[in-house]
Amino acid sequence: MSGVFDATTDPALRSWVPVPAECDFPVQNLSLGIVSRAGESPRVGVAIGADVLDLALVAEAGLLEESLPGSRVVLSGASLNALLGRGRSAWTALRARLSRLLAVDDQTLRDVPGLVERALYPRTQARMRLPFAVGDYVDFYSSIEHATNLGRLFRPGAEPLLPNYRHIPIGYHGRSSTIVVSGTPIVRPCGQRRPDPQRGPVFGASAALDIELEIGFVTGPGNALGTPISIAAAREHIYGLVLVNDWSARDIQAWEYQPLGPFLGKSFATSISPWVVSLAALEPYRVAGPVQEPEPLPYLRTAEAWNYDIALSVELQSAQMARAGTAPLTISRPNFKKMYWNMAQQLAHATVNGAVTRPGDLFASGTISDVEPDFGSLIELTWRGAHPIRLPDGSQRAFLQDGDSVRLLGHAGGGAAPRIGFGEVSGSVSAADLGTTSTEVNP
Amino acid sequence: MSGVFDATTDPALRSWVPVPAECDFPVQNLSLGIVSRAGESPRVGVAIGADVLDLALVAEAGLLEESLPGSRVVLSGASLNALLGRGRSAWTALRARLSRLLAVDDQTLRDVPGLVERALYPRTQARMRLPFAVGDYVDFYSSIEHATNLGRLFRPGAEPLLPNYRHIPIGYHGRSSTIVVSGTPIVRPCGQRRPDPQRGPVFGASAALDIELEIGFVTGPGNALGTPISIAAAREHIYGLVLVNDWSARDIQAWEYQPLGPFLGKSFATSISPWVVSLAALEPYRVAGPVQEPEPLPYLRTAEAWNYDIALSVELQSAQMARAGTAPLTISRPNFKKMYWNMAQQLAHATVNGAVTRPGDLFASGTISDVEPDFGSLIELTWRGAHPIRLPDGSQRAFLQDGDSVRLLGHAGGGAAPRIGFGEVSGSVSAADLGTTSTEVNP
Repeated sequence: MSGVFDATTDPALRSWVPVPAECDFPVQNLSLGIVSRAGESPRVGVAIGADVLDLALVAEAGLLEESLPGSRVVLSGASLNALLGRGRSAWTALRARLSRLLAVDDQTLRDVPGLVERALYPRTQARMRLPFAVGDYVDFYSSIEHATNLGRLFRPGAEPLLPNYRHIPIGYHGRSSTIVVSGTPIVRPCGQRRPDPQRGPVFGASAALDIELEIGFVTGPGNALGTPISIAAAREHIYGLVLVNDWSARDIQAWEYQPLGPFLGKSFATSISPWVVSLAALEPYRVAGPVQEPEPLPYLRTAEAWNYDIALSVELQSAQMARAGTAPLTISRPNFKKMYWNMAQQLAHATVNGAVTRPGDLFASGTISDVEPDFGSLIELTWRGAHPIRLPDGSQRAFLQDGDSVRLLGHAGGGAAPRIGFGEVSGSVSAADLGTTSTEVNP
Repeated sequence: MSGVFDATTDPALRSWVPVPAECDFPVQNLSLGIVSRAGESPRVGVAIGADVLDLALVAEAGLLEESLPGSRVVLSGASLNALLGRGRSAWTALRARLSRLLAVDDQTLRDVPGLVERALYPRTQARMRLPFAVGDYVDFYSSIEHATNLGRLFRPGAEPLLPNYRHIPIGYHGRSSTIVVSGTPIVRPCGQRRPDPQRGPVFGASAALDIELEIGFVTGPGNALGTPISIAAAREHIYGLVLVNDWSARDIQAWEYQPLGPFLGKSFATSISPWVVSLAALEPYRVAGPVQEPEPLPYLRTAEAWNYDIALSVELQSAQMARAGTAPLTISRPNFKKMYWNMAQQLAHATVNGAVTRPGDLFASGTISDVEPDFGSLIELTWRGAHPIRLPDGSQRAFLQDGDSVRLLGHAGGGAAPRIGFGEVSGSVSAADLGTTSTEVNP
C-alpha cells in the first residue's frame, strides 16, 4: 500500500453524514468497534462523524456481501475477531466499500427504504463493548525515554539502559482476562507491598496507583506454530491500533517483580479504547523512526517507515474538580512517533522463536514518554512523587487518588489533513474493596 | 469434600472395563480429555483402563442428562471449557455418574444395544487434542529447591532466595497460544543470545534448550473483575491437574529477561498432558505442605492440606537410543508434595488484586525440583553443563540435542491404593528452521 494512492485516504473525500469540525472520525478514518443499543445484541459498527453506522444491518441488507463474503455472520458477531482473521485483503475490500457507501456522491445506503433511519444513529446512544476478544496480551517497553527514566528512578547512579535494550524489543506477557473497554471503573487493587524495607510486607490497597499511556496493535490472521512472521510480512498481520491505559500499582510491582517481572502490579486492569483505528487510515501519517544505533540484527531490520505521527494527551480530573465543573487538566502531550522500537520489529521479534499469534492478540507499546515534561506515567511526571502535580482544586498528586478520572486521547493529522482520531480511553478510580482482609499486618 | 467418604475414590471399586496392573486409569481416576477417531469431530472422553469411553455418544444416548443437564452439548464440544465453567457441583455429579456407569455391578451402558461397541475403544486409537482452550497462562516458581538452585547458579556468592520469595507465590504470565498437547514436535527455537558477554548478541538457534517438569492446574467458573477468590474458595475453582513441560531456551532467556522477565525463552512451546486428572480423584493423596516460615499474610493462610503426593519422573532418549531400541533413561524422580507454595495460595494470590480467572485458565507450578539429584530441569541436573548427563549411547548432555525425546510421567497412589496417573507429556526436539535468517551476525 505504501506509496500507492489510496482513494480512502484522499483528503478531498467527504461523506453525506455530517462530520463536525475537529471530529476524530471523518470518512477517511472508518474505525470499527463493537456496539449495541438497548435491547440489541453486540455487533460491528463503524464510527462516522458524531454517529455510528450499524454494519450488521448494512450487511443484512446485502450491501457488503460482494466485498466481504460472509459479511452477515462476520459483522453481526460480538467481536472483531472473525474480521481480523480474514486478513488484509478482506480489510482493504471492506474499507474501500464503506468509503464508497459513505461518500457524499453515493446514494446506495439512502436508496434502501428505512435503512439509514435504522442503521445510523448518534454515537452517544451506542454502548461500546470490548472490540475484540484478546488471546494473548504482550506489553513492550519501546519508548527509550521511558526506559531511561525508569532506569534513573530505580537504579540511580547506574547506566539507565540495560545492555539488551538497544538490541531487543523488550516485552512481557500481561493478563488478557482483565483487558476492559474504556469507561470500565477501575477498583484500586489490593496486594502485598513493602513500604518499609526494614520490615516485612503488608497487605492492603495500593498506595501508588499509576497510569501508563500506551498504543496497542491488534493482529490478524496469525502464523502457524514454528513459522515466524518476518518483518516484511508484518503489515499483513497488523490490523490497527487502540489507545491503552496499562494501570499499574507501583508499590505492588516493586515488591513482586524480581526475578520474573511484573505480575499483580499490572494484572488488575488494562483499559483500551473502543474504536480500532486501522493502519490503512493512518497510512498518510507514517514517519521514519529514530536512528537505531547499533543497527539491529537482520531479522529486525526494515527500510520501511514504521513509526506513526500520533499526538497524544493525558487528562486528569479529581472528583472535586468534576463536582465543581472544572475541566480536566492536561498533564502530558507526548507523540507516538519517537518510539525506539516499532510495531513491525515487535511482531517479528515476538514470533521469531516460532510463537503463534492469533486474531485478536494485543501488543502494546509500553509507556509512551516523550521529552520532559511529556511523560506517559505519573511516576515519571512526578519523579516518584518528588514533584507532585498541582490540580486546579488545590490538591496535589504523586499517584492517583480515589475518585480521580484519567482520559487518554490521540489523533493523527488535523487542520488541513484529515484528522484520524482514536476517541478516548477513560477510567475512574474507585476505592479498594478491602472486605474482610483489610487489616494491614506487618509481621 | 475433605474428610467425607467418597464412593468414587473407594479402593474397593472395580470396573467392568478391564484395567491392567499398574495402569494410570482405574475407575477411581476418570480423567477427562478431548479425543477423536478418524473422521470424528473432537469430543470429551474419559480414560478407563487401556480404553477411552466416548462421552459424547454416552450423552447422546441420554445417560448423562440427569447428572449434567445439557450434557449433549457440553460433552460434544472440542474442549472441556464448557464443563469447566459449570463448576464443582456439576463436576461432582458427572464424576459420580461415570463412576456408577463404569462400576462392575452396573449394567446400564451394556444394556443399550450397540453403545459399548461404538463408545468404548482402545486409547491407542484416540487422537488426543489439547484438552481445554487456555485463556491466560500463569507460571509460578513454587519449588523452593528450584528457586534456590537457580539463585546459586545465577547469583553465586549471594543469598540464593530473593527477599520476596517466602512472602509471595512468585509468578508471571506466559503465552497461551503456544500451549500444545503431548506429542507435538518441538522445533528448536531461534532468537537472540549473547554467548560472549564482551561482544554483541548473535541470532541463531538456541544452544541451551531445556525442559521444566511442572504440574499445572486448570480453573473452573472464575470470578468477576474486582472480586478476589479467597483461599477458602479455591477448591470451587480448581478442576484438576495436568503435567506440563515448560520448554525453555536458557540462552535466549538469559539475554532477554532483564528487567521484565521471561519472554521468548519460554513462549515457543509449552506441552501439557492430554488427560486432566481431577482434584476429586487425587483427594486421597492430599498431604500437608512444608512449614512456611515466616507465616504468610492472612490472605495466603489455610489450615487445609493443599499439597499432593505425586511421584514424577523425567525420561530422556536420544535419536540414537531410539534407533537402537534402547529404553529411555530416567534422569530424575521428584515428588510434587514438597512444593513451597500450594495451588490454593497461588489462586488466592493471583486474584487478590481483582484479576479475573476464566474456565480454561492454566496455572503451572514452575519447575518441580526435589532434593539432589531429583531436579526438574537440565540446567539444575547438569549444574549448567558442569556435570553432563551420560546417556546409554555414550553421548553426553548439558542441554537437549536435536532428535532427543523427553517424557514426563506422574502418578499418585499405586500398590494397594488406587493408582491415579497422569499418563504422560512427551515431545521430541527437531532442528531449528533457520530459513533465510541463519547467518549468525556478531556486530
